[in-house]
Amino acid sequence: MLVDGRETTQIDALDRGLCYGDGLFETLAIVDGRPQLWQQHIERLRSGCRRLDITMPAEELLLQEVTSLCRQRQQNDQPRRVAKIILTRGTGGRGYRAGVATSSRIIALFDWPDYPPTRNDGISVRWCRTTLGMNPALAGIKHLNRLEQVMARNEWQDESIAEGLMLDTRGRVIEGTMSNLFIVRDQCLLTPRLDQCGVAGIVRRLICEDRLGHGLAITEQDVDKPDVLAADELFVCNSLIGLWPVITIEDQQAPKSYTVGPVTRRLQTLFNASLQK
Amino acid sequence: MLVDGRETTQIDALDRGLCYGDGLFETLAIVDGRPQLWQQHIERLRSGCRRLDITMPAEELLLQEVTSLCRQRQQNDQPRRVAKIILTRGTGGRGYRAGVATSSRIIALFDWPDYPPTRNDGISVRWCRTTLGMNPALAGIKHLNRLEQVMARNEWQDESIAEGLMLDTRGRVIEGTMSNLFIVRDQCLLTPRLDQCGVAGIVRRLICEDRLGHGLAITEQDVDKPDVLAADELFVCNSLIGLWPVITIEDQQAPKSYTVGPVTRRLQTLFNASLQK
Repeated sequence: MLVDGRETTQIDALDRGLCYGDGLFETLAIVDGRPQLWQQHIERLRSGCRRLDITMPAEELLLQEVTSLCRQRQQNDQPRRVAKIILTRGTGGRGYRAGVATSSRIIALFDWPDYPPTRNDGISVRWCRTTLGMNPALAGIKHLNRLEQVMARNEWQDESIAEGLMLDTRGRVIEGTMSNLFIVRDQCLLTPRLDQCGVAGIVRRLICEDRLGHGLAITEQDVDKPDVLAADELFVCNSLIGLWPVITIEDQQAPKSYTVGPVTRRLQTLFNASLQK
Repeated sequence: MLVDGRETTQIDALDRGLCYGDGLFETLAIVDGRPQLWQQHIERLRSGCRRLDITMPAEELLLQEVTSLCRQRQQNDQPRRVAKIILTRGTGGRGYRAGVATSSRIIALFDWPDYPPTRNDGISVRWCRTTLGMNPALAGIKHLNRLEQVMARNEWQDESIAEGLMLDTRGRVIEGTMSNLFIVRDQCLLTPRLDQCGVAGIVRRLICEDRLGHGLAITEQDVDKPDVLAADELFVCNSLIGLWPVITIEDQQAPKSYTVGPVTRRLQTLFNASLQK
């Protein structure tokens, strides 16, 4: 792990990232020592810095630190790793006022999560009771205020449930605890608008801007439970898992099943191919 | 500073308090080496632990650590200090799932903030643009997800403005960035309900439960801007500042002035007397 470029596992206990969640993070897939979708992650980090008025370090510095960490820890039996970049407003005094702190950066390397490979062929999800508060000022940003996700993820322990779907306080479906959600209907893609809450994921953006070349019509819109239940296909996505088709939604009243459809399969193939470029 | 009882200024960079704001804090006034309103702070911390399912350390341990730190750093020229207790879910792996972490505790001592004493005779406040997202699951808790307050407090640099008032996303007035808000009208007290957002302050609770013996009728209710503008008296409060009367609300359209009324003065006196018991 590197903290401000130094090999250490410790940070200042008065860092504003700890005191107030005053910072941002990115979680990147590392394949054969190379960070995947680097430009997209950096763009999102830069945009988060702009919105929260946090000093963005030079991209070259971040890339150098991530790659040096990867090189150092390279293990032939682990072609895939996870890198996490945490960027905080830095160490400040007590109180919400930000002052003139220099941002702190933490770069850590983790083992690839041992998700069962079967998840690529379909997962079960559940509805979370924990809702997402709405706040346009923070919507979309991958900031460190993540208690809602923590509480939602801790609603279930059942290993057979791979993800939980979260609604906002108005009852609209927004995303998974760690992923974005897409609906396929009549050969078109729908995904929830993230102007009030939610995290604007990297893979979501690749799909929305059609960087994958899928050529499908796509709409960002308000999504409610009936929209989800009426889907032809359903999938969740993020930079580590890629795309996981949803085949079951657990629901005490009426569990709902989906088949893994051709659109999801095609997007999975396109996404995987894009990583190997 | 003490981290888990050890003299250090560092914590684990993978502490969930940093990664996700997954924790709680308390800010206490220390007078002549003694933490003020200790029982109330501990009760709130315990209640926060219950709601977030974080392990609460023994109260005796926390008290011993706070007092030993105070004793050690006692300075005769500084009768008042500030203690901050941060309690996080502890160090966990990557991912929102909480696992079985042991909570981490940080206890830090700070100088008393040099608020101008004139603030006891009235302050100017402003309306913040940053709103508070609504989420019943987190409402009232003094957790570490405080980006909204950070953004609101950074809207102004003008030293003559002592506090900013925050509205929720539905336009109701909730609190100050670091304080709770009370309205005096017709000799009654009104304060915003905190069932959707906001921090349930210690002094607010003392007033609401009438531990001060003010004997006034009090209502927790929805409050909007016209309610604030129609107040006979207005004040903000927290454990460090006590009660600050509001004498001006800055507003581009119509700045509003209040006089420091007898109810506010009486509550100030009662609060100050309660601390010396």
